[in-house]
Amino acid sequence: VPPTGLLVGILGGMGPAATADFYEKLIKATPARTDQEHLRVVMWADPTVPDRTEALKDAGADLIAVPCNTAHAFVPRIELQVGVRIIHMIEETARHIDAMSPPVDRVALLATTGTVKAGLYQDWLSRTGKKVLLPTAPEQAEVSRIIGEVKAGRVVTELRHRIAEIAETLVARGAQVVVAGCTEIPLVLRPEDVSVPVADPSQILAEAVVAEAGGTLIPQR
Amino acid sequence: VPPTGLLVGILGGMGPAATADFYEKLIKATPARTDQEHLRVVMWADPTVPDRTEALKDAGADLIAVPCNTAHAFVPRIELQVGVRIIHMIEETARHIDAMSPPVDRVALLATTGTVKAGLYQDWLSRTGKKVLLPTAPEQAEVSRIIGEVKAGRVVTELRHRIAEIAETLVARGAQVVVAGCTEIPLVLRPEDVSVPVADPSQILAEAVVAEAGGTLIPQR
Repeated sequence: VPPTGLLVGILGGMGPAATADFYEKLIKATPARTDQEHLRVVMWADPTVPDRTEALKDAGADLIAVPCNTAHAFVPRIELQVGVRIIHMIEETARHIDAMSPPVDRVALLATTGTVKAGLYQDWLSRTGKKVLLPTAPEQAEVSRIIGEVKAGRVVTELRHRIAEIAETLVARGAQVVVAGCTEIPLVLRPEDVSVPVADPSQILAEAVVAEAGGTLIPQR
Repeated sequence: VPPTGLLVGILGGMGPAATADFYEKLIKATPARTDQEHLRVVMWADPTVPDRTEALKDAGADLIAVPCNTAHAFVPRIELQVGVRIIHMIEETARHIDAMSPPVDRVALLATTGTVKAGLYQDWLSRTGKKVLLPTAPEQAEVSRIIGEVKAGRVVTELRHRIAEIAETLVARGAQVVVAGCTEIPLVLRPEDVSVPVADPSQILAEAVVAEAGGTLIPQR
């Protein structure tokens, strides 16, 4: 039996395309030169029964990633119950934004209405003194519609333009960074279409997982 | 508890980028309009211990996909031992090619040396009277090098050009279709760079899984 590294659990399926996108980001974020240097991964992606955390624990996961912002409302409770470390995507994103250079203090949030109302980004970002700028109610309705279109597999030019326009209205109101705060958003919002940096929590989570598990990556033999 | 469909097991990790590519193709091949209409998936991607079929069975997988051509040398034996249906990627690809219109009888194979030597495509394609054209030994060495580069995360223009050139030498020798017979190949060989159709077994497997599990997809409520 060869030496093996930590087993990374991915709780996916919410939604599926965003889960595939996260997994791809995780692979690309891993500094592996051979297959064997890559992370060991077990993934549950069951859109009908989203909480499969117990199954990941039973599979032996050492740490768990949940590539869904909205689900993070439940993450602390699940982590406590299951007893496996869950890398907190929103905490990691807040830390990433706090470390940006030049520093920012006004952050635009594009997310589901559920994430916005749960106040997760607002809470985490306020701890380091950041102010969150939200879309207007009609804009938020459009953001929700766009997320639904991406979930339905429709990523078309019209949606790309519209989400970038909404981001730019927040930039015009003073935002210095835009958080793609729903894992479907990076599938439709291209950083090159926005005049300030776009923080992608899915990418940040992928890098955090690699950093956490990276010390146990198998060295090239 | 809502009604749930079949649980699809994915045995991945060989290699990781190809597994991510397959999972993305599976999502895109699913005719779902909402998250809940997507397939239930459990994936083991452990590059250090590739055979996690038992874990997929224990997780309750109803059918298993193995997005790795080379591993198919072991698929019939594993299927027999584990007792869970494994959708056979190479059999599905041979069927796909036999159904092509206009019909083809000469098929180019770009694959790992292991897959070429195992004779899997040769066996399956000969059942419907197809002839397999292989790269020359120096070309095969280059194909192997290119697969290694993709596994190492380097997908650059030079590789794209070179793999397309090798494909074209096989077309010049009479091939009417090119099989991207290693799941890393579709990550670097673009169909638009080849003058005949490219058969992508990873895509064909994704569609076969959806067709197999599709009857139990959850209808939109």
